[in-house]
Amino acid sequence: EEIFDAIRRLVVRGAPAIGCAAAYGLAAIMQAHVDKTPAQFMELVHENAAFLNTSRPTAVNLSWALKRCEARLQAVKAGDSMELWHALWQEADAILNEDIAMCRRIGEFGAELIQDGCTVLTHCNAGALATGDYGTALSPMYVAHEKGVRFNVLADETRPLLQGSRLTAWELHRAGINVHVICDNMAGWMMKQKKVDLVIVGADRIAANGDTANKIGTYSVAVLAHAHGIPFYVAAPYSTIDRSLPDGSGIPIEERAREEITHAWGRATAPDDVPVFNPAFDVTPHHLIRGIITQNGILRPPFEQAIAELFA
Amino acid sequence: EEIFDAIRRLVVRGAPAIGCAAAYGLAAIMQAHVDKTPAQFMELVHENAAFLNTSRPTAVNLSWALKRCEARLQAVKAGDSMELWHALWQEADAILNEDIAMCRRIGEFGAELIQDGCTVLTHCNAGALATGDYGTALSPMYVAHEKGVRFNVLADETRPLLQGSRLTAWELHRAGINVHVICDNMAGWMMKQKKVDLVIVGADRIAANGDTANKIGTYSVAVLAHAHGIPFYVAAPYSTIDRSLPDGSGIPIEERAREEITHAWGRATAPDDVPVFNPAFDVTPHHLIRGIITQNGILRPPFEQAIAELFA
Repeated sequence: EEIFDAIRRLVVRGAPAIGCAAAYGLAAIMQAHVDKTPAQFMELVHENAAFLNTSRPTAVNLSWALKRCEARLQAVKAGDSMELWHALWQEADAILNEDIAMCRRIGEFGAELIQDGCTVLTHCNAGALATGDYGTALSPMYVAHEKGVRFNVLADETRPLLQGSRLTAWELHRAGINVHVICDNMAGWMMKQKKVDLVIVGADRIAANGDTANKIGTYSVAVLAHAHGIPFYVAAPYSTIDRSLPDGSGIPIEERAREEITHAWGRATAPDDVPVFNPAFDVTPHHLIRGIITQNGILRPPFEQAIAELFA
Repeated sequence: EEIFDAIRRLVVRGAPAIGCAAAYGLAAIMQAHVDKTPAQFMELVHENAAFLNTSRPTAVNLSWALKRCEARLQAVKAGDSMELWHALWQEADAILNEDIAMCRRIGEFGAELIQDGCTVLTHCNAGALATGDYGTALSPMYVAHEKGVRFNVLADETRPLLQGSRLTAWELHRAGINVHVICDNMAGWMMKQKKVDLVIVGADRIAANGDTANKIGTYSVAVLAHAHGIPFYVAAPYSTIDRSLPDGSGIPIEERAREEITHAWGRATAPDDVPVFNPAFDVTPHHLIRGIITQNGILRPPFEQAIAELFA
């Protein structure tokens, strides 16, 4: 329940980090059951995986990691539950290690987009605090910085929870990357003044045609970038692609608590009895996306074909 | 200095309310000088008007109201300073009364745009708390509500100072109008889902070609509305039109303190040492505006011609 709570309350957040946390969480829960029979153990694995899977509805990495752990156990011909539990732990380690390698590779491919003197805008946090390592959207920035490219970052603060100002700005600034925080509603004006050359964001779920669910506000940034002729990229590992969905219309959008908007930082930020809408994500249609930066290169439109080839 | 401070710190805010406050402020300041000679009195009027005029750079109503007060005094052939002071006070009353009449008329013209069952999105606060009466952008909503039209309002919270959630939502909710607060970055997603039929915003300064300075974020809303085929209207009195500027490029944009973004509500909302950009306004180009709702009717493109005819 601690892991469930940590994911639900966003103590652990960011799609890849949620996947890692869920895998390790499942392993941690199952430690208490190594004295059960293998059949009982497996039943409890399924039960707890199903429970953890309900902690957040939008990020596909959560169910992806849990399914992968269950599949690993089904493949193990274990004599006892302790062996099953070791396999579970190894799978969590594998998910984390693959995540680290994946982040680096996304960074290498994405860094080629970042030119000397340019400004990259990002929304929310898809960085080291959202993954096992360099992150997805921020990884190209870390790699470009390592290579000595001089560039600027604009971090949308990302209301209501301010992942941009609290996390992205913090981690980039700490790494010595030149970052400015702006309020979300300033992005368009910055683009109008030609102060943005490139947008890179993360993704919580990508449909088979490239439609991309990500933090609320991403769609607005994509429309604004399109209107100003600024290339808009999504950075995400394969595990974010959900081929069971032909397009973005089937992606469930989490509606979060009204207090995130009306009571930020312990203070009332809106009248108590005024209703709010608080969707946590939106879906950016594929035609607004210039490319999807994956661990195997940058996918280009038409994404439906590029994604099909990737999994072929 | 109290008035100067109230305007600078946004205790009084909203372009028309600033005009009223500056006029009454000047009258209040000059009460202490009714025993001076008329020449001394006039000199102090000019000095204090110049001082008050520096409290905010973007809203044209501030200098408009102060110039009007000075012009009135120049027209008065006064025997003593007490008479001048009375004239000053009368001019402030006139500015307020005209503001009240102006708000109602804007509301009457704008209300025709609000159909039964529609949803109007607004940004920042151009309502009763920004003017002498019903406001500018919100006045059509008050008038439509009085006429029994049933409609919904989406209020952008309007970072960094949350005039939308703290003022617009409060005053509309109190009036019994159905209003929901959204974060600024949700506006595009609401439009995508066909939940917005109409946008009405206020204005801080309008150039001779219709380019409109208003609260930061207005430009993004205008681009998003345009991309979704949603009509975008500005509501403002004539006094907001600054014919000395051929277009919006000459409108000064106030850059406000970093703490508005990094330290909202007494709590750190970004790391202490991270730089920010904090422009308080942006300029929406005239081609994104469907109409400007004034106290004499709705101006339609080409605005350059409509505005020239208005002042002819």
